[in-house]
Amino acid sequence: MTIDHYENHHREANGGSALNVAQGVGDQPVVNPAFVRRKRPQLSVEQFVEGILARDIAILSQAITLVESNNPAHYATAQKIIEGCLPHAGRSVRIGITGVPGAGKSTFIEAVGGMVAGQGHRLAVLAIDPSSERSGGSILGDKTRMESISTDPRIYIRPSPSAGSLGGVARKTRETVVLCEAAGYDVVFIETVGVGQSETAVHSMVDMFMLLQISGAGDELQGIKRGIMEMADAIVITKAEGDNIVRAELAKRQFENALMLFPTPDSGWRPRVFTSSAYAGTGLAEVWAGVGEFLDFVRAGGYYAANRNRQNQYWMRETIDDALRSDFYHDPEIEALLPRYREQVMADRMSSFVAAHELLDKYYKK
Amino acid sequence: MTIDHYENHHREANGGSALNVAQGVGDQPVVNPAFVRRKRPQLSVEQFVEGILARDIAILSQAITLVESNNPAHYATAQKIIEGCLPHAGRSVRIGITGVPGAGKSTFIEAVGGMVAGQGHRLAVLAIDPSSERSGGSILGDKTRMESISTDPRIYIRPSPSAGSLGGVARKTRETVVLCEAAGYDVVFIETVGVGQSETAVHSMVDMFMLLQISGAGDELQGIKRGIMEMADAIVITKAEGDNIVRAELAKRQFENALMLFPTPDSGWRPRVFTSSAYAGTGLAEVWAGVGEFLDFVRAGGYYAANRNRQNQYWMRETIDDALRSDFYHDPEIEALLPRYREQVMADRMSSFVAAHELLDKYYKK
Repeated sequence: MTIDHYENHHREANGGSALNVAQGVGDQPVVNPAFVRRKRPQLSVEQFVEGILARDIAILSQAITLVESNNPAHYATAQKIIEGCLPHAGRSVRIGITGVPGAGKSTFIEAVGGMVAGQGHRLAVLAIDPSSERSGGSILGDKTRMESISTDPRIYIRPSPSAGSLGGVARKTRETVVLCEAAGYDVVFIETVGVGQSETAVHSMVDMFMLLQISGAGDELQGIKRGIMEMADAIVITKAEGDNIVRAELAKRQFENALMLFPTPDSGWRPRVFTSSAYAGTGLAEVWAGVGEFLDFVRAGGYYAANRNRQNQYWMRETIDDALRSDFYHDPEIEALLPRYREQVMADRMSSFVAAHELLDKYYKK
Repeated sequence: MTIDHYENHHREANGGSALNVAQGVGDQPVVNPAFVRRKRPQLSVEQFVEGILARDIAILSQAITLVESNNPAHYATAQKIIEGCLPHAGRSVRIGITGVPGAGKSTFIEAVGGMVAGQGHRLAVLAIDPSSERSGGSILGDKTRMESISTDPRIYIRPSPSAGSLGGVARKTRETVVLCEAAGYDVVFIETVGVGQSETAVHSMVDMFMLLQISGAGDELQGIKRGIMEMADAIVITKAEGDNIVRAELAKRQFENALMLFPTPDSGWRPRVFTSSAYAGTGLAEVWAGVGEFLDFVRAGGYYAANRNRQNQYWMRETIDDALRSDFYHDPEIEALLPRYREQVMADRMSSFVAAHELLDKYYKK
């Protein structure tokens, strides 16, 4: 089993208690047949780490489930496993792939993924989609998708963690990357839907960011969120096949012209535009060669390492900020007062700054 | 005196203690001749508010100096003045104007400003430039600039507050807008340099955001920061005069094509591109007519009011976030521990999330 549907499904059905981790929980949960059938031996943190390093997919999946769990005991165990894996992580190429629904992300990942695995790489495909609860299903979660690579032992596909705050979902994916790298995956794709806030989060955990666009500029592009195009290191015009080839080439030139108006990003790399067809199998090798050129470029210039350092610090800072905000806004007194202050501010009866400082005074007085 | 250079210069020379506000400060500072020459009577908060509402420029300038002061007593007085002004504020059109140095911001503001004042408007020109200390002088601070409008009684020009954190400088400018509006200025321009982080701050305090670009796409555009183009409600190609007209028209078409690839912003307004020459006086009326069309559009759709509400809330949230972060990072224990944790995280010996949580544990234990 390479696509991790069962794990995911099972975890949801059992409210996160599907795993028996060695953590001293005495009570046995209500047992259902599915649970008994796949019951696993209790693993220690060391066994988890050893299993992951030995590339045991079942153990990797169990560890990721711990990372994704909302149970504090699971989370604590997960953190220890991550610590154990960290010295063996960091050696993959992390690529973010975004595009609106319909841009052809699945077929593109399937086609490029198959090619990359064929070249001897081991590929992990992850996703961030905090909206999955609303949209009724996480990306990568559809069993019928990516059929051609889902049984490939060199490829590990893990659907987006179940819905939660963006910060939470992003953290889980960021930590899952560490586990996958320790398990020997040297290429990691992180898919996102291109319509929300998740792109900034993904951009902050990858080495290269790729935007997929369907051929034909105009209405088709409306879905993509502002600011995303300026993050892209490469734009891939998809579905460049048959009657679409001319439109795709036109779109390519339009994007190239548009990108010329953008300033050079910090990496110094000028974003490139490709056309491809997952169906016809064209353009994929060129895209993958472009990835290689990008990596050579940023590695030579020192940007690659600097960017990873910056990302590590970014996630430390973000986690701290999240926690500070959460403590403030969940303070009972603040919760009680906030609506009134917010109303005053919105009605321009109180300045934003005075409102903020009065609330802060009450918070810190305790 | 309409350009507020003297005030600014004086304040800097005296470390913020140039004003004698009625606040019970007993000690007389060391007196220098410049100080005595311009000594003002001590004003009460009520006198400040009355003076501002009566459009007394000297009193407005004094109040802004209080807003900009780092002295907590001055700040407290300033907040009371702002509260008194708030019911009379909010009725101006707030326009952000950005562009790299050399894009022609001063001459553009001078030309459009003169025209706008000629139409019966009262214009305040403010600036945000947190980098002014580094660059050796704040924008709008050069006395030789904007000569033609600096003596116009309908126009009030105030240089950027002296250097400080972006958050601090932005707050001061945001509060200065309130005072200017209460003083009857019905158009407010906020200038920024287009190379730093200040554009997001300005974008969050204006109704319309305008990007100035010199004609000719290519190397000239490199200076502008990524993401800024996607904030713009209008792009103005400047210096479209003489031999430059053809290049300016070409640049206009290039930007129009590029903007077509962008998604429609939340306002629903499709950003427009103009060419203009402050020198030849061409295109300025068209730009100003475009401002009017934009305002009609966003007012009719309800975006205008919704955006201002959102901005008020944004500043409340930002102020709270700033304060929470500041308290955390200035905690002596955190300050002592942070370098070691940061080093561990950068060396990939500790996960960003574990580092963050260990620091948070220590912070909250007290």
